Amino acid sequence: MVERVLGRIPALECLRAKKRAARTLYLLRGAKGLDALRAAAGNVPVRECDRELLDGLAAGTAHQGVVLEADPLPIANADRWTRESFPHECVVVVLDGIEDPHNFGAIARSAAACGSYGIVFGKDRAAPVSPATVKSAAGGMEYIELVRATNLARTLRALKNQGFWLAGLDAAADQVLWDADLTGRVAFVVGSEGAGIRPGIQKLCDFHLRIPLTGPITSLNASVSAAIALVECMRQRQPRGVDR
Amino acid sequence: MVERVLGRIPALECLRAKKRAARTLYLLRGAKGLDALRAAAGNVPVRECDRELLDGLAAGTAHQGVVLEADPLPIANADRWTRESFPHECVVVVLDGIEDPHNFGAIARSAAACGSYGIVFGKDRAAPVSPATVKSAAGGMEYIELVRATNLARTLRALKNQGFWLAGLDAAADQVLWDADLTGRVAFVVGSEGAGIRPGIQKLCDFHLRIPLTGPITSLNASVSAAIALVECMRQRQPRGVDR
Repeated sequence: MVERVLGRIPALECLRAKKRAARTLYLLRGAKGLDALRAAAGNVPVRECDRELLDGLAAGTAHQGVVLEADPLPIANADRWTRESFPHECVVVVLDGIEDPHNFGAIARSAAACGSYGIVFGKDRAAPVSPATVKSAAGGMEYIELVRATNLARTLRALKNQGFWLAGLDAAADQVLWDADLTGRVAFVVGSEGAGIRPGIQKLCDFHLRIPLTGPITSLNASVSAAIALVECMRQRQPRGVDR
Repeated sequence: MVERVLGRIPALECLRAKKRAARTLYLLRGAKGLDALRAAAGNVPVRECDRELLDGLAAGTAHQGVVLEADPLPIANADRWTRESFPHECVVVVLDGIEDPHNFGAIARSAAACGSYGIVFGKDRAAPVSPATVKSAAGGMEYIELVRATNLARTLRALKNQGFWLAGLDAAADQVLWDADLTGRVAFVVGSEGAGIRPGIQKLCDFHLRIPLTGPITSLNASVSAAIALVECMRQRQPRGVDR
């Protein structure tokens, strides 16, 4: 089985990351600005083709003249993954029911940009890893560990045993994001777009954090909230960022 | 001319904000969870209808059983708007070529959540205010001042004369976002998804700020970058947020 990676940046990052084998790179004949892609392709066969073929491969999604066929993204099993050893400074993102593929992809992009270690998602109530999520991730999924949990509560307990602090993002929480110590091993739990984090998962969290909003709109997009939490983590881990 | 506001939250916030007159609220007959919308409608006529009619009104976009017809969003003229008086503490967002309607809408949502004062966009190279942007904004556009600039450079100079610091977000900048003083009057300039801020606009900026990323992916989505800058502004303006 092959997966199709659509668009210039996703295909380029897939080739660069080498997390999975690339099979064939399809490029729109005569298109400009594809030199970096050709260079990254190395020994991967390149086929110049017409728009019709690309449109068919992309099944209606925008492709910017680039479709890469590659092996499926490796997805780790949470029960095995949580038994591995983790770095001392380590951030993972745990998605409790992100069903929008664009949000899932956007979170993976931000997580990879912030140097996060992995992204854990449930077997149910979660957008699958798909061409749409991979495209929204703009390459992020090629670098970050993707971990599927059969039972999210069990995975969170296993992370806790590994010394992770579990931090739930919750608009109604008392504690403000930037008042929490977010160094060491931290797992951020992000709830679904509508219902937030499920109560059973909430209870497992060591603390609950909110982004204190001051405007008439009282919630942020789930992928924006996640990015803000990840950037705050990164800020606290950078020497000159701890205090302004 | 009427505009159609699609979806539950966008329609609810449109009714609550009262920035523009609502004309007719169309609701899917028998749909659940619409009490808040009915309450917010007040004297606005409510029509219960079937899915076919709603699908037609929404022209193929997801509507969650809710379409609100309302007057168009008022859009201020930048030359007039920049002559008005501004609060002492005031953040505006200036978009230099955000062409993706979802990014435009997402930025408006974050700006409204962070209590920003307005959002300025060019006449060209910008996603228009449309049902798609209004939907992505999840109500944000109903609260924030929308300002269209014929000449973005002129508008930036006018803001500078009003005491605004112009801060360009630029992944290649030397200064780190959280090392800058972001109190007082600040205008954040956000560049296009591909090319960033145009050189002529860059030159007008008083400082250039980057979000220091540590991962293998070296850029964030434009709407995520904007949100992080807006939240950092908010953090610095909240008494206990200035120092951890």
